[in-house]
Amino acid sequence: MRPQSLAVILASVLALLALPATADTSKPTPSAKELIAQSKPNEWRTPDPNNLLYMQLPQGRVVIELAPDFTPLHAANIRTLVREHYFDGLAIIRVQDNFVTQWGDPNDDDSGDKSKIKPLGHAKRTLPPEYTRAIDPKLPWTSLPDGDVYAPQVGFTEGFPAGRDPATGREWLLHCYGMVGVARDVAPDSGNGSSLYTVIGQAPRQIDRNLAIAGRVIEGMQYLSALPRGTGPLGFYTQAAQRVPILSVKLAADLPPAQREQLQVLRTDSATFAALVDAKRNRHDTFYTLPAGKVGVCNIDVPVRTQPASSGAR
Amino acid sequence: MRPQSLAVILASVLALLALPATADTSKPTPSAKELIAQSKPNEWRTPDPNNLLYMQLPQGRVVIELAPDFTPLHAANIRTLVREHYFDGLAIIRVQDNFVTQWGDPNDDDSGDKSKIKPLGHAKRTLPPEYTRAIDPKLPWTSLPDGDVYAPQVGFTEGFPAGRDPATGREWLLHCYGMVGVARDVAPDSGNGSSLYTVIGQAPRQIDRNLAIAGRVIEGMQYLSALPRGTGPLGFYTQAAQRVPILSVKLAADLPPAQREQLQVLRTDSATFAALVDAKRNRHDTFYTLPAGKVGVCNIDVPVRTQPASSGAR
Repeated sequence: MRPQSLAVILASVLALLALPATADTSKPTPSAKELIAQSKPNEWRTPDPNNLLYMQLPQGRVVIELAPDFTPLHAANIRTLVREHYFDGLAIIRVQDNFVTQWGDPNDDDSGDKSKIKPLGHAKRTLPPEYTRAIDPKLPWTSLPDGDVYAPQVGFTEGFPAGRDPATGREWLLHCYGMVGVARDVAPDSGNGSSLYTVIGQAPRQIDRNLAIAGRVIEGMQYLSALPRGTGPLGFYTQAAQRVPILSVKLAADLPPAQREQLQVLRTDSATFAALVDAKRNRHDTFYTLPAGKVGVCNIDVPVRTQPASSGAR
Repeated sequence: MRPQSLAVILASVLALLALPATADTSKPTPSAKELIAQSKPNEWRTPDPNNLLYMQLPQGRVVIELAPDFTPLHAANIRTLVREHYFDGLAIIRVQDNFVTQWGDPNDDDSGDKSKIKPLGHAKRTLPPEYTRAIDPKLPWTSLPDGDVYAPQVGFTEGFPAGRDPATGREWLLHCYGMVGVARDVAPDSGNGSSLYTVIGQAPRQIDRNLAIAGRVIEGMQYLSALPRGTGPLGFYTQAAQRVPILSVKLAADLPPAQREQLQVLRTDSATFAALVDAKRNRHDTFYTLPAGKVGVCNIDVPVRTQPASSGAR
C-alpha cells in the first residue's frame, strides 16, 4: 500500500454520507464531522448535572449520564452512594472480553474479605427491578425503522438507545456499547447500584429486560474498554494488584460549575442526528461502494462534544 | 450485595440453556460448558495448519484461522507474506475504540518513513477484491432463522458467520467481533493482506461486502482488544513507543507438529452448535427470567478448545 493509503482508508471509515435512499450516489456527501459542524446550537443539550457521574480512574475520567426517566430509583440510590463516597477506593473488579467491565467492592466477591465489605450507608439494599417501564408518550421518541432482531421497535430517547413493545406497552433501554447496567444477585430486587457494568463488546442484547440500565458512558469509555481482561472465571481479576482503583466518583452537581465538564450531547430528536443516522445507513463514497441500506440501533453513535466557547445552548 | 452475589451473577451470565421455544422454562437446562462437555469428538474439527497463523506479540500468541473458501487469493498472498517473514518486526499501528485493531507496516502511514517501507517480496501488490463469492451449495451452511438487519439471510459456514442474498446468488463473511479483515486503499484491488484488522467492538456490519475478510481470531483475542486506544485520528498511534511490536507471524504448517497449538473449533453444522445457539436464544434460568426468543448472528460464539488428550477427532 502507498504511504497515504492508511489515511485514505481511515478518512473513509469515518465518512458518513447523508444520502436519502434514492440519493445520487455518484457524489460523496458530508462526513459526520461535517454534519456535526453544520449543526445548530439548539440541537445539543447539556446533561443535567444531577445526572452526571464523574468516575476518576488513574488513567483518566469516565463520565456517565444517568437515565432517571427509565431507572429513577436506581439513579436516586446511586446519587446517595456517590454523595456518601461509597465508590471512592473501590475498584474495577472484572473485565470479560467482548462482554462487560464491572466495578464495585472487591470484598463483595468470593475471594474477598467479607468482614471488609463496605457498608451502603443511607442507600437502599434492594430496589424494584426497573428493567422496563410503561411507554410514556411525553418522552421523546425517535424511531429507527430499520428493524431489529431482539425488539419489536427500536429507536432513541433522550440520547439513549431503546426498545418498545406495543403489545405490552413497555419500553426499555438497550445493552449497546457503553451503556451502563446494574449488577445484581439472583433476586430481581437485589440490584442497588453499588456494582455497575458497561458493555465493551458486541451488544449483549439477549440480556435486555433482565437487568436495569442506569445510563451511558459519554466520555472516557476507552478507560474501561482497554483494560486487561481478567483471567479468572467470567473475567474477574484474581489478584488485587490487577484491579484498577476508583479514586473517586462524584456527582457533577456537587462540584462548582467551573469544575464541571462542558459536555453536550446531540439531541436524538434533532435533524442533525437524523442526518447522521441516514448517512450511516446509506454511506457511499469513493471507498465504500456498496451502501448497507440499513443500520442497526447499536451501530449508531450518539455524538458528544465539548461545548464550543461561542455556543449559547444550554 | 452478598459475598456470593457476583459469582452467582457471573455463573448465570454464562449459563446458556438449551430450551426449545416451547420448553418447560421452570427448570434451567445445561450451561454452555455442560453442552460442550457432552459434545462428541467428531463435532470438533482441527483447522488445517495451512490456514492457521500464529502472530506472536509480547503479551502472547494470537491464532487466526484463514477462510480460503471465501478469500482464496488473499489467503495465498498472506501465506507468501508470512513465509517471507514480512510481518516479523512490524507492529499494531491502530486501535480505534469500538471499531478495529489494525496491524501492518508503521512506515506505510502518513507519519512513517517512506524510504523504510518494507517490500512485499513475492507477494502480489494488488488482488481481486473477494468481498463476496457465488453461493456454493457444496459449502456447509447452517441457517440462522432469527433475522438480521443487514443481510437477507445469515448463518454459519465452516466456523464463520456469513450472509447470503438469494437475489444476487452471493454470500460473504460478516464483520463480527474477532473477524479479521483486509485493509486497503481506495481502489478495490489495493488490498493485499499486508495490513489486517480485527473487530474489537460492536460489529460494524455496514462495511460488510466493502472489504475482504481473511478469517477469524480463534485464540488470543484479548491481546488485540485490550490494547490502549490510539490517540491519533481514527485511533492511530501517534508515537512509535505506543505501537505493539509483532515479534513474528508464522504458518502452523511450517512448524513441526509438536510445536503447533492443539486447537479445535466446534463444527457450526453440529448438533452441539445448534443446541448452543438455541440455548442463547431461549436462555432462561433463575437469573434471566425473560428469554430473548431471538439471537443475533454476531452474538453467537463459535467455541474453540484445546484438543483433549483422549480425543481422536482430527
